[in-house]
Amino acid sequence: MSTAENSRDLIQSIERGFAVLLAFDADRPNPTLAELAAATGLSRPAVRRILLTLQHLGYVHGESGRWSLTPRVLSIGQHYSASHAMIETAQPHLLRLAEHTGESASLAALDGTEVVYIARVPVRRIMSINVSIGTRVPAHATSMGRVLLAWAPRSCVDEVIEAGLPRLTDLTITDPVELRSALRTVREQGYAIVSEELEEGLVSASAPVRDRSGAVVAALASSSSIGRSSVDELRRHVVPLLVSTAEAISADYGHRRGTKARSTVTGEHEGFF
Amino acid sequence: MSTAENSRDLIQSIERGFAVLLAFDADRPNPTLAELAAATGLSRPAVRRILLTLQHLGYVHGESGRWSLTPRVLSIGQHYSASHAMIETAQPHLLRLAEHTGESASLAALDGTEVVYIARVPVRRIMSINVSIGTRVPAHATSMGRVLLAWAPRSCVDEVIEAGLPRLTDLTITDPVELRSALRTVREQGYAIVSEELEEGLVSASAPVRDRSGAVVAALASSSSIGRSSVDELRRHVVPLLVSTAEAISADYGHRRGTKARSTVTGEHEGFF
Repeated sequence: MSTAENSRDLIQSIERGFAVLLAFDADRPNPTLAELAAATGLSRPAVRRILLTLQHLGYVHGESGRWSLTPRVLSIGQHYSASHAMIETAQPHLLRLAEHTGESASLAALDGTEVVYIARVPVRRIMSINVSIGTRVPAHATSMGRVLLAWAPRSCVDEVIEAGLPRLTDLTITDPVELRSALRTVREQGYAIVSEELEEGLVSASAPVRDRSGAVVAALASSSSIGRSSVDELRRHVVPLLVSTAEAISADYGHRRGTKARSTVTGEHEGFF
Repeated sequence: MSTAENSRDLIQSIERGFAVLLAFDADRPNPTLAELAAATGLSRPAVRRILLTLQHLGYVHGESGRWSLTPRVLSIGQHYSASHAMIETAQPHLLRLAEHTGESASLAALDGTEVVYIARVPVRRIMSINVSIGTRVPAHATSMGRVLLAWAPRSCVDEVIEAGLPRLTDLTITDPVELRSALRTVREQGYAIVSEELEEGLVSASAPVRDRSGAVVAALASSSSIGRSSVDELRRHVVPLLVSTAEAISADYGHRRGTKARSTVTGEHEGFF
């Protein structure tokens, strides 16, 4: 089912409700009804009814002809966090990783061709984009995306490749063959390092987090600036910690070691934290 | 307009769509259709159509008769964060506050009788509840709520009092007269300290963040455990930093000092960071 029109089972007004909610952003924080109509392609009367409904539910607030999102909107995402036990499980591990590395620690999940930050302990501001929970970045150009794609079903990788591999910096891998080869390397070595493919100056390392069945369900990442950490330093100093932390999260979440996990972690890092 | 039935302008299916989305939580992370019908009070065919619509939009995923929220749900909240410039403005200040105090730093906004965490830099795990962005706590029993209510219109305080002031610990203020008096003190001193009213062992301090007009739009808070910080230590060591940080966020956000701001901060803390 590709469009709402294809199925009598889909409810168009729900789709339209989300379209209006998502029309609020950094460029349009306090839109008028007319601006929302233009942004969504809906008629003004339709947008008006949707806004009144969303206001009734407490998600938007109208004042002097301008509308804004209320903090209640954040509750929706909170239900995602609350219903995914791994996020709570990971929190203390993210904190310790950030403390030991002095760099931001993040957890991300795959959603189509993008990765979504699902938990994060910020340490320094290193990216030009504002990374908060829910922020989306292209999967092909990030260490988190490489980890998630490396263990994802082939169809997920195909989807990313078919969508195109946009060049974000001079170093971004844009060739499908090269990407598939990079993913094989990630699977073999048990982690990913991606340097300056998403943004110049940004380098990050990532390791897989697994559920009880051994399936990779999230990627744990540590991000740094190329000025502070070379790829080689990251590999030597951060990757062992990262891999052992990802394994500790997986273990806490119920995954028994050794069933499907692959990693380069050595005995001396076991129980490092 | 108090219920959807009262107005022909409200769209019931949008309300129902959110009801299904919010029925996923820690107690019900992977519900069946029947469980969602029971939780929302909607019929199974109605829930089925809503789930198919939400799946079409990418917010839920169904597998083997069980449903779960996808990370795309987090994008909705991200639109709140992106459309509220103060959150991005506050981020580096929250980081520095957390680094200097060694305690978690949070930013919260008022939503009815509750406060909602809109930004947070976690440091240690001190609360038994999982505090993430979007988490809601009762306004009357938290330092953030006291700050937000202290400068809120009288009607907001009345709403909180009319909803009742639940006793959460032995120390929670539950008397309306006592609460109003506490709010006056907060206004006079320019900050709030609340000790063990939300949860035993938890103490926090909070200061107001203002927009360009001088209106208090958020509360900045530092939380600690009563074992690590007495109320007196918090007042002497954390409050000056907290107030100057809240002023710095307000200034960065466009508020000119001295117009409406009240604070106890002394010259020596100006520009501490």
